[in-house]
Amino acid sequence: MIDTLRLTRILHFLETIDRFKLIYRVNYLSEQSRHENDAEHTWHMAMFALLLQNELDVVIDIEHTLKLILTHDLVEIYAGDTPAFDAVGNLDKEEREERAAHLLFAQLPEDLRDQIYDWWKEFEACKTPEARYARAVDKLQSFAQNIFSQGRNWCENGITAEKSRVINRAAREFDPALTQVFELLYKRGIDEQLWSE
Amino acid sequence: MIDTLRLTRILHFLETIDRFKLIYRVNYLSEQSRHENDAEHTWHMAMFALLLQNELDVVIDIEHTLKLILTHDLVEIYAGDTPAFDAVGNLDKEEREERAAHLLFAQLPEDLRDQIYDWWKEFEACKTPEARYARAVDKLQSFAQNIFSQGRNWCENGITAEKSRVINRAAREFDPALTQVFELLYKRGIDEQLWSE
Repeated sequence: MIDTLRLTRILHFLETIDRFKLIYRVNYLSEQSRHENDAEHTWHMAMFALLLQNELDVVIDIEHTLKLILTHDLVEIYAGDTPAFDAVGNLDKEEREERAAHLLFAQLPEDLRDQIYDWWKEFEACKTPEARYARAVDKLQSFAQNIFSQGRNWCENGITAEKSRVINRAAREFDPALTQVFELLYKRGIDEQLWSE
Repeated sequence: MIDTLRLTRILHFLETIDRFKLIYRVNYLSEQSRHENDAEHTWHMAMFALLLQNELDVVIDIEHTLKLILTHDLVEIYAGDTPAFDAVGNLDKEEREERAAHLLFAQLPEDLRDQIYDWWKEFEACKTPEARYARAVDKLQSFAQNIFSQGRNWCENGITAEKSRVINRAAREFDPALTQVFELLYKRGIDEQLWSE
């Protein structure tokens, strides 16, 4: 018999994070009926990571990568989404997200709180191969989603191909396979004239 | 340099499965503004699996469980969602989903097509500990989501506590920890009078 309080806290956290489904990003779904939310972005990222894993030169632990991916944006439940090109929002992003992490993860029993906090910090620090892959996939899914949705977010927010190349540099350079995938997508973006400049 | 056709096929599949975000389930989000979709359900299931894993008596491989979870409902992109209590829809569910699996997974290079098909079949067969855990979590997330959303789907579809106990029997009996979690949720459902009968 497990301590009821322990299970109640886990369940409470699992209920709180239902709100992840209501954190909308600037990106659109392919058919552009609405913005994509964090839960959808996260699931899609996990699928990118899973299906591109065998193409990499770098050896990564996919289990650990998936854990980092599944939890990497949870802090946005309290801190909101801060798009990569939002210069003002990015000024205090770190501070806002740190506060959010403490508030959110404290709802879990201590061992799980520490575990999930460590995963989030590892993703943010972007040093281990798994964190670097997870972060590259974060950028890649986002970039691909914009291509799939005819660049609507880029058009609305004045994002040029050049700006996106800067934002995606580390992701593009993470591994030759990702470089190639990004180039395929850039080619499609150019062919479909998704950038005005 | 990876074969461009191979990467193009993977990308095409990753674009196709964007539609997963538009397959709506009968369950509602906690605040009941709308139904939950398959991508959200899948991400949430992965979080349930991750956070309850250490409470289990059964030893499971979490990496493999996550792979089964991430891909278990993809066939619904072509076959649609069939709620557990939809007797008519469940008559030809297996046949519809098998056709959908062939159509959908064939978009991938052969090795990945076979891999993802095997994961899906393993989940469906529900024999390995990972498939049994993934399936139990599928039922648990769905049940919890109904509790979180004040039983609105149950009310709309005439699902009684008794009916839900039948549907969730295998999930409840998978492991003592899950039995306990389900009982906590049933207690809450009764306290909040979510079932009329």
